[in-house]
Amino acid sequence: MESNRILIENTIILDCLKTEKTSVLIENDKISEISQELVSRDADKTIDGAGKILMPGLINSHTHMSMTLLRGLADDLPLDVWLNEHIWPMEAHLNGDYCYYGAMLACLEMIKSGTTTFNDMYFFMDDVAKAVDKSGLRGVLSHGMIDLGDEGKRKSEFKETHRIIEKCHNTANGRITVAFGPHSPYTCSKELLREVRSESNKLGNPIHIHVAETEHEVKQIIETHGKRPFEYLEEIGFLGNDVLAAHAVHISDKEIEIVKKNGVKISHNPASNMKLASGVSPIDKMIKKGITVSLGTDGAASNNNLDMIEEMKLATLLQKVHNMDPTALAAKKAFEVGTYQGAVALGMKNDLGTIETNKKADLILMDIKSPHLTPFRHPISHIVYSASGSDINTTICNGNILMENREVLTICEEQVMEIAQNAAEDMLSKN
Amino acid sequence: MESNRILIENTIILDCLKTEKTSVLIENDKISEISQELVSRDADKTIDGAGKILMPGLINSHTHMSMTLLRGLADDLPLDVWLNEHIWPMEAHLNGDYCYYGAMLACLEMIKSGTTTFNDMYFFMDDVAKAVDKSGLRGVLSHGMIDLGDEGKRKSEFKETHRIIEKCHNTANGRITVAFGPHSPYTCSKELLREVRSESNKLGNPIHIHVAETEHEVKQIIETHGKRPFEYLEEIGFLGNDVLAAHAVHISDKEIEIVKKNGVKISHNPASNMKLASGVSPIDKMIKKGITVSLGTDGAASNNNLDMIEEMKLATLLQKVHNMDPTALAAKKAFEVGTYQGAVALGMKNDLGTIETNKKADLILMDIKSPHLTPFRHPISHIVYSASGSDINTTICNGNILMENREVLTICEEQVMEIAQNAAEDMLSKN
Repeated sequence: MESNRILIENTIILDCLKTEKTSVLIENDKISEISQELVSRDADKTIDGAGKILMPGLINSHTHMSMTLLRGLADDLPLDVWLNEHIWPMEAHLNGDYCYYGAMLACLEMIKSGTTTFNDMYFFMDDVAKAVDKSGLRGVLSHGMIDLGDEGKRKSEFKETHRIIEKCHNTANGRITVAFGPHSPYTCSKELLREVRSESNKLGNPIHIHVAETEHEVKQIIETHGKRPFEYLEEIGFLGNDVLAAHAVHISDKEIEIVKKNGVKISHNPASNMKLASGVSPIDKMIKKGITVSLGTDGAASNNNLDMIEEMKLATLLQKVHNMDPTALAAKKAFEVGTYQGAVALGMKNDLGTIETNKKADLILMDIKSPHLTPFRHPISHIVYSASGSDINTTICNGNILMENREVLTICEEQVMEIAQNAAEDMLSKN
Repeated sequence: MESNRILIENTIILDCLKTEKTSVLIENDKISEISQELVSRDADKTIDGAGKILMPGLINSHTHMSMTLLRGLADDLPLDVWLNEHIWPMEAHLNGDYCYYGAMLACLEMIKSGTTTFNDMYFFMDDVAKAVDKSGLRGVLSHGMIDLGDEGKRKSEFKETHRIIEKCHNTANGRITVAFGPHSPYTCSKELLREVRSESNKLGNPIHIHVAETEHEVKQIIETHGKRPFEYLEEIGFLGNDVLAAHAVHISDKEIEIVKKNGVKISHNPASNMKLASGVSPIDKMIKKGITVSLGTDGAASNNNLDMIEEMKLATLLQKVHNMDPTALAAKKAFEVGTYQGAVALGMKNDLGTIETNKKADLILMDIKSPHLTPFRHPISHIVYSASGSDINTTICNGNILMENREVLTICEEQVMEIAQNAAEDMLSKN
């Protein structure tokens, strides 16, 4: 690999630890120096960071990328109607091509709104991996495993997971990690969950699972296992600090203690939880207990975008009104949840989430010369409360510039939108 | 006035009543024809509407424009600390220039995010009117009246209100209306409220007031008057179908009946109510009872932007999760609340809120060729759940193009941001 040195000059760097006027030098995939003394001749390419804020790339810790094809398909429906009559019939037509096109569209949207790392669970994950590789983003991919107690199905789910691990894990210059993706404690048998645990211990791949998203699901687990979801998962020895649990909306105080004790990481998905009327996850409480809470958009079918800046605002507003406490989840904490805590949740805190030398160069520039970001004062307030993903000007991942001045460089925007539109229409025509 | 004919060709028009592929002709300040047969030679200027959606301009029914200067000043604080230690000390330094600069910044932000009409309450309203006139927007302006029972103060508040009515009402080619702005039932005496009612009956100017925003305020009214806010306002003969009540967060079922019986209009402000932890207004219930509910951003100090597209999403998500009902305030209804119901609330339903011939040409074009709006399917879903204000491409008010292809034509964007930044710094330096 040739040396690739990019200087971001004369900018304001901002992460959850500091705000500082300085310049940043990227060498290959890493941040090599942060200093006001850096000058253009140090680099092969210089980006003018004046009038912009340089932040760590946003980390979307729970999504289903290929579901962008189902965006706006059906809204405002009871969960069972939405799933049974709209989402599942469409998903029955899924194939590798559709998943690739949907993932390409998701990558494009993420690049344009400042997300550089995401945690994805879906199907045909080697096709999703192709999109991640091409787009230049960083992703943790898991095949969604569902056995509903069927042994044959269980075997084929493990076969598929191992196929994806072998084919995709640690590819794309290390940008792709493969995780185990048992869908949830109500769609996976105890046997499947235990086998995931032992395989994960053996191979070291992390675990991504949905837990306690809806009240209905909690009831079902209690009926089947006589315990609430996290209690049950602890009892069968599934939990660990490599488990990322998405949603955790309906979680008791006792379960919060279980999550903390086992080092389980949470992905909070406020837009989806609000839109599907799932409920409000008590993340302010969990954060105060020292639990790692990160942020996700969920799939575009229940959000309906992948805008992590919007998600940060939703997270803080929802905690405030739900707890009737305007100090809940302050802007600075919401920003940390969308950046550094995402890195912690994905086991990547040594590489991602803050702007420090020797960390990966996953960086985004936000343009602050905009009416809705004027007057310029406390940048974190503007980022969380006033901005949107469209204020991101430049996106860099693993030291490569994926977007500069809103122009995406790694994939063709027009073409990706066209193939995604065609794929969505094609899928619908099969219904 | 010279004839000014603008053709918006080959677009998709969308309002709360219809979605239709067609073209629209504007003559002077009005929509003169809607037809697929329209061609360029019918017009002095043609706008290509292909790949775009033409909607009624958004209507922000409660805001404090000049407060954009206080954007991001202080966040995440208890209401009393926020007001006593941050907002009020800054407001003590207000003058006509500051209010003008802040209003110019707000106008700029509104033009860029598709709002064409707003309902504003603040101070130095003749200076705000200058900004409205210059920017080309449509506004209802009211001087915020507060007497706290002091007779001298009451007289000076009426004097100022009458000065603004005489100087500004029905100016800017009819784009500026002046309303009475009694601040609230807890800051205004019974005498002030009664005098507003009788003056309004005499002059025909509408009334804009805050009611039942916080629990604290409701308690205070009960202690003072032995009744809840809307009960008290009805008792003193204040209510009427010309009253727009902002917030109405803490409203009893009995008060909902009072609001309905008296034809009072509501402005719902979800971002502000969430951010200040005021609570959740039961708008789904009120709408189902046939009450006019419109949408507002409140001031930028408690939002922190004026993005009505974001506000529509917040409104629907908040109703869904609060009522634990995913069918609450469907996208189509949220869109209606942000457009047509705003027109009804401001007494302008014959002129605004839908795309019909002989209505005012207050129109916006949204660019739908964007990754986060792909695949194109149900446009209302995309507008409410996926878009943001930055997707607005063109803004037209009263038949004049205020922004085309994101370029603001009536005011200089750079200059407005610079004077607003300077004014904000200047105000802060006086603290």
